[in-house]
Amino acid sequence: MGRQMKLGLSMVQNGTHLAAWRHPGSPLGGALDFKLWKRMAQAAEAAKIHFMFWADGAAVRINAKSDDDLSYNGRIEQFEPTTLMAAISAVTERIGLIATASTTYNEPYTVARKFASLDYLSEGRVGWNVVTSWSEQEAVNFNRDKHLDHSVRYRRAEEFFDVVLGLWDSWEDDAFLRDREGGRYFDPAKMHVLAHKGEHFSVRGPLNIARPVQGYPVIAQAGSSEPGQDLAARTADLVYTAQQNLAEAQAFYASVKGRLAAYGRSPDDMLVMPGAMIVVGETDEAARDKLAELEALIHPKIGMGILERTVGDLSAYPVDGPVPDLTGDGPVKSISGKTLRLAREQGLTIRQLYTRLSGGSGHYQIVGSAKTIVDEMEAWFLGGGCDGFNMMLPYYPDGLEDVLRLVVPELQRRGLFRTEYEGRTLRENLGLRRPAHHTGVPRSTRAG
Amino acid sequence: MGRQMKLGLSMVQNGTHLAAWRHPGSPLGGALDFKLWKRMAQAAEAAKIHFMFWADGAAVRINAKSDDDLSYNGRIEQFEPTTLMAAISAVTERIGLIATASTTYNEPYTVARKFASLDYLSEGRVGWNVVTSWSEQEAVNFNRDKHLDHSVRYRRAEEFFDVVLGLWDSWEDDAFLRDREGGRYFDPAKMHVLAHKGEHFSVRGPLNIARPVQGYPVIAQAGSSEPGQDLAARTADLVYTAQQNLAEAQAFYASVKGRLAAYGRSPDDMLVMPGAMIVVGETDEAARDKLAELEALIHPKIGMGILERTVGDLSAYPVDGPVPDLTGDGPVKSISGKTLRLAREQGLTIRQLYTRLSGGSGHYQIVGSAKTIVDEMEAWFLGGGCDGFNMMLPYYPDGLEDVLRLVVPELQRRGLFRTEYEGRTLRENLGLRRPAHHTGVPRSTRAG
Repeated sequence: MGRQMKLGLSMVQNGTHLAAWRHPGSPLGGALDFKLWKRMAQAAEAAKIHFMFWADGAAVRINAKSDDDLSYNGRIEQFEPTTLMAAISAVTERIGLIATASTTYNEPYTVARKFASLDYLSEGRVGWNVVTSWSEQEAVNFNRDKHLDHSVRYRRAEEFFDVVLGLWDSWEDDAFLRDREGGRYFDPAKMHVLAHKGEHFSVRGPLNIARPVQGYPVIAQAGSSEPGQDLAARTADLVYTAQQNLAEAQAFYASVKGRLAAYGRSPDDMLVMPGAMIVVGETDEAARDKLAELEALIHPKIGMGILERTVGDLSAYPVDGPVPDLTGDGPVKSISGKTLRLAREQGLTIRQLYTRLSGGSGHYQIVGSAKTIVDEMEAWFLGGGCDGFNMMLPYYPDGLEDVLRLVVPELQRRGLFRTEYEGRTLRENLGLRRPAHHTGVPRSTRAG
Repeated sequence: MGRQMKLGLSMVQNGTHLAAWRHPGSPLGGALDFKLWKRMAQAAEAAKIHFMFWADGAAVRINAKSDDDLSYNGRIEQFEPTTLMAAISAVTERIGLIATASTTYNEPYTVARKFASLDYLSEGRVGWNVVTSWSEQEAVNFNRDKHLDHSVRYRRAEEFFDVVLGLWDSWEDDAFLRDREGGRYFDPAKMHVLAHKGEHFSVRGPLNIARPVQGYPVIAQAGSSEPGQDLAARTADLVYTAQQNLAEAQAFYASVKGRLAAYGRSPDDMLVMPGAMIVVGETDEAARDKLAELEALIHPKIGMGILERTVGDLSAYPVDGPVPDLTGDGPVKSISGKTLRLAREQGLTIRQLYTRLSGGSGHYQIVGSAKTIVDEMEAWFLGGGCDGFNMMLPYYPDGLEDVLRLVVPELQRRGLFRTEYEGRTLRENLGLRRPAHHTGVPRSTRAG
């Protein structure tokens, strides 16, 4: 059996499409309905999906000009992902569960402890997506006027990461003797007190939980910038990235994998998994109709917001009128001229323009029959563009279940995806080594 | 039907007794075995118990003279309780789940969000035990040399609490319209941005989750001091307290309930539930034998630690020798003379002395047949000493299942405990009102 794809599901509120919540197939209040999440997790597990993944932020992270504009946005309420993940772990047995936790507004002891606890609850199926927080909306919820500078944030993140790993190594794998007869609970030679003192953190340890089942939970990261790629090459088991076409994906793949050797790691030690919104139908046409149905549900208030963030504020113009000619003395400042000119040449209305710009939420979008979609996924996978995909579903649960019902079997038929979980833990199922216990040497100065 | 008792289970690692983990009935590694916790939660739910409760600290909070001494202690590893609670919520339907989260080393946005998320996951069954952190062991895990002064800690706690409640009121109960047709997700008039700026916190809001199912999760507190009682009278739905006998319990009950009127609350708005370790057997003698079996498992290293923290360091003397006469020029400083004199008069050995001092972990201890135990519980309940109990079990799962099998049916036979859950949410099942939405007025300056 040849190399096979890794498949994750990138989950958000009611679905990746901006208008997901307005779709008649999307249950009202589904974002906070655990029964729906349980159903989706169990369906994904039955299809042998590697993991579900939750991005996260500790705020309503939406830029809107007014409360009224904000009120048309469906991205307001969500489960806190580590609690959701814990609950899902109790009703599944094999699927992995990865959540974001920020290094900016948390403490390393808290994060190390929580993910170790999750790793025991799930019997070794969790991952931590390491991020820094960049939004003003989070800053003002955490005693700040604005977010930390990029460089401070990254220095803090590096130190945070090293402290978390050090805390996970508080106890060797066989430190807990639990010797009933002799009365000794642990071997004191196998306890390692971190006693970290650094620029941002002073953390003694030990952690009040055993070394995680997986040694360290799977480490995910999304950095695609140059420093982001270096950080990933040093620390990440799994890279989540946005790539718009195969050529870009190939370049990124080669670039990030090429950095691993410098850290004593092999290309197989890291999985590159671009995000892709997948809209599948019985035929290509049916899939395009599905997407069109969703696009028609983008409220003009949301559409105007997209335009404002990309080409400029067009809210003064009628939504079904032509894209205005703003080469003159219009009211609009700092317009992205090229996109607007193109739209005018093609005779688009404002609604048509924002619909076109709404696709994929910044990620690659694949729309079509299972054959069309799998052809494209296969080309990326075999063409050195990725090790698999973080699939984004347009709305829940149908958009998810369609992918499991149509795309996964076609991948399996071609031998591109497994038909059974290979192991018990997420590391085992991703083909990643279980990291050995380290003491004393911070990860930042050691290989691997 | 008359007034009935509320019953909680206070859970810790392998059981409340210090030697729980050494008991042959206690599964090795049980503290981190979710299957065991699931089994216990489902058994407790079948018995109609009101809630499970987890105390917590973000450290190994044990004072030991050396790593060697520490290594005989079984209180090292534990699940982080909010993740454990989330997992249990997915495999139960009615039982309440209450966890401690500290106001000292957390941020209010994080705590408000997490408990709101838990309240949705569990469909309204969670509670927050509000504490301040007093241990040096936690301080050094969170960038400090020592813990915060009592007064600073309490001012921070009061402000923290008000911010959390304010964040839970970010959205009115009916703020989320989710109007698919019109495209409006929420009513902007029903969003309330807290914009708190205080001594310790600056938090804008809104919370990125709807108002909790219960309005506010159930608020628990353990303060028994004078200021602690006032704080509880202002804020708590449920008071967890340690009382050693009925007279003390009656005095505390009258004192704390008497403070409610000053905050515009009625005596029924707060439940007083002392902790009690319950060791039940088929007969009184069988119960005493059970306890003796556990006591015999207290390792001398642990026993000497108990003595050191209560009467002084006796580790230089043989454990099965007599309690030494330290009235002369012995090596022991700051000995609690009365206890030692009594022990000598009764001819106790050192082992017998620490065994006697080990009982109940500072809580009341009831040992006997179901009849004996229920007689005592009934006397407290009908005698104005409590509204129910936080039951502490000597070891898991047997110590728990014995109480469910023997004590609960006897309470039900006497009409002192329900035979079915009355409602869906923890508030409903505790007979507590669902708090109305408040805006603008901090809890600290308003009634109720």
